[in-house]
Amino acid sequence: MYVVIFRASIRSLDDEYASVAARMRKLAMEQFGCLEFHAVAEGRDEVALSYWPSEEAIRAWKAHPEHVLAQKAGRERWYASYSVQVARVTRAYHGTS
Amino acid sequence: MYVVIFRASIRSLDDEYASVAARMRKLAMEQFGCLEFHAVAEGRDEVALSYWPSEEAIRAWKAHPEHVLAQKAGRERWYASYSVQVARVTRAYHGTS
Repeated sequence: MYVVIFRASIRSLDDEYASVAARMRKLAMEQFGCLEFHAVAEGRDEVALSYWPSEEAIRAWKAHPEHVLAQKAGRERWYASYSVQVARVTRAYHGTS
Repeated sequence: MYVVIFRASIRSLDDEYASVAARMRKLAMEQFGCLEFHAVAEGRDEVALSYWPSEEAIRAWKAHPEHVLAQKAGRERWYASYSVQVARVTRAYHGTS
């Protein structure tokens, strides 16, 4: 399993942001095989984790025309800076108390 | 490079939490080779990302006695549930707008 770690410094989120973000999440999960999506924002810091079965699925999603437009809006309007890391999960564990 | 993705559902953070968290971060970076640490919390959701040169460094850090005590406090007091994923970074890119 692969994880994409999107980290961003938020510049300004407008009305369109929430609808585009929801649409992207739905597309990723329903049409590109995204397994899970989890985003957390605190002040200007955003971290969004998405989990994928393969690097091919990630590449296909990155190149999807509607997603390319969303990435452009992200760079030009919503985010001051961002970074993306793609990583292969080698171990995982969890617990409840 | 490796990343450890710590995700937790916060139960209750007491006065000790902030000092232990700061101490753990300092220890990880100064004595265990942690390259970067970035944590974001929104409501009850916490995501903490730490970056490491190797899996060996991660294992050594996980087993450090002071860190083991902090993990126990996390399970018993601060977090309702948590998950940890260790992943090897295969690609990374970033941008500013």
